[in-house]
Amino acid sequence: MKTFDLSGYLSRNRKLVDDALATVFDEFDRQRELVQAMTHSLMAGGKRVRPALALATADALGADPLIALPASCAIEMIHTYSLIHDDLPGMDDDDLRRGVPTCHKQFSEATAILAGDGLLTHAFHILAAPMTCFKVFPDAETRLILVEKISAAAGINGMVEGQMLDMQAEKNPENLPSDSPGVLTHLKKIHRHKTGAMIEVSVASGAISAGADPDALNALGTYAQNIGLAFQVMDDILNVIGDPKIMGKAAGTDALHDKMTFPAILGLEESKAFSRQLVADALEALDSYGEKEFKKNSEPLRAIAAYIINRKR
Amino acid sequence: MKTFDLSGYLSRNRKLVDDALATVFDEFDRQRELVQAMTHSLMAGGKRVRPALALATADALGADPLIALPASCAIEMIHTYSLIHDDLPGMDDDDLRRGVPTCHKQFSEATAILAGDGLLTHAFHILAAPMTCFKVFPDAETRLILVEKISAAAGINGMVEGQMLDMQAEKNPENLPSDSPGVLTHLKKIHRHKTGAMIEVSVASGAISAGADPDALNALGTYAQNIGLAFQVMDDILNVIGDPKIMGKAAGTDALHDKMTFPAILGLEESKAFSRQLVADALEALDSYGEKEFKKNSEPLRAIAAYIINRKR
Repeated sequence: MKTFDLSGYLSRNRKLVDDALATVFDEFDRQRELVQAMTHSLMAGGKRVRPALALATADALGADPLIALPASCAIEMIHTYSLIHDDLPGMDDDDLRRGVPTCHKQFSEATAILAGDGLLTHAFHILAAPMTCFKVFPDAETRLILVEKISAAAGINGMVEGQMLDMQAEKNPENLPSDSPGVLTHLKKIHRHKTGAMIEVSVASGAISAGADPDALNALGTYAQNIGLAFQVMDDILNVIGDPKIMGKAAGTDALHDKMTFPAILGLEESKAFSRQLVADALEALDSYGEKEFKKNSEPLRAIAAYIINRKR
Repeated sequence: MKTFDLSGYLSRNRKLVDDALATVFDEFDRQRELVQAMTHSLMAGGKRVRPALALATADALGADPLIALPASCAIEMIHTYSLIHDDLPGMDDDDLRRGVPTCHKQFSEATAILAGDGLLTHAFHILAAPMTCFKVFPDAETRLILVEKISAAAGINGMVEGQMLDMQAEKNPENLPSDSPGVLTHLKKIHRHKTGAMIEVSVASGAISAGADPDALNALGTYAQNIGLAFQVMDDILNVIGDPKIMGKAAGTDALHDKMTFPAILGLEESKAFSRQLVADALEALDSYGEKEFKKNSEPLRAIAAYIINRKR
């Protein structure tokens, strides 16, 4: 049996998303510093994992994947804003991101704050008022549900709270649970908010855009929860064993900052085993939904799950 | 003829908005630092001008003003986020706002960045998925239009760009037009984006929530444009002649920072005359729409227009 060409699939989808994002910003004068700062970070060559998940989910459900493109772009804009704000001097104070200077390094701190605010705001705008750059888009009722779900995942009970929990854990490690199971539970809570919520809503948005039934939403939700956590476990692992040249960012920084990570709590080998188990659970969730057609169509989702723990960056 | 009791009207509407905002946050654990930071700034006693405009607009159109409450709360949350981010060390670096310590002073810089992000995100969430705290709310189609209009006003071509233009004018005054009419045009452009867009969308949101017809939207749009600019001209005037104790913030700061303001360009007296003319134009727009019923119902809108240039803070 021929192996699925994930690399080619991701490249094609990546081009779809990059082209759509570029077209979204064609509406604006590119000479404006605000627009430059937004696109600097947005087009800096992220992995586009979240859009890929949304598009692959629409594929899995036999829908035209383009139906998930507006949500994909909105989610990538929200992801990018969170990176811009996370990199700020008042937060993680990072100089490099996706291999290029962070937004506040390239422009200024104020510009980076505003570029993040602009991306977050415009994400909801393109959902509410889809541009002509999207050839197809969900109907109004579905788009309102997308605004609801994506704002929930990005907000107070989702990503923003995850950033807060992460920061509090770093600042006040004395407030963390003192036993290993307690720390592990807390670490999972952080990641379920910080990265998990947006990965889950990427899959959910693809499904909602494609008009998924409750059973599909349920199976895909379990898939997403598991790969979301696997993604973070692997991020922690890569921070230990990754190649800075391939990753476009420094390695070993977590240990240096004595950060609470899966390798630090579970050890490196057990973290790897944990990530493999999570991916196995994700695939099982897809199997449980398991119509024949779905099995074939969900090949990209399965390949992405495998990629998450095999990636080098 | 009895004078309209604006103070009582504003108090009642203010209580409506404050209660609704408080209920929005009852959903969350108030012990969480993120929730505390968001509510610290949100409930710090702002003037609630924007919600008042939305509610008064619904009133003017003979609708139940409560229909405009979800949009009012969303707009106030967006306004508050913009203040939190504007006060950050990387932006204006202010210590005091609405008479209490700014969010980053009370909590931390990182918390303030996240609290702002959380408020902005949740504003769209309450529009998409109105909580039970709103007894009435517009239908789904109307709510999607509200997300569209409010995100447009708050975003890249609205408030965020206004902040950017304002910052650029302060940082690089050598790039400003050198002639007085040119500077005035540029100053109007800044304010049309920075404050005008959100004031206009407050009125528009009240109208859209109430199901306004195109003629009403048009007349109310002209009203809003004029009072929006009048509001900013008066803000500049108050920075010259206002009482810091009444305003809850320092006066004279614009002149100290050699800031481009209406009094600096036009002089104090001509600025006052300009603000009066803008309010007169706003009232004329209401007259032009002018059904008898509307004339009576729009009394709050008329009183707010007058208040904008008579306020002390």
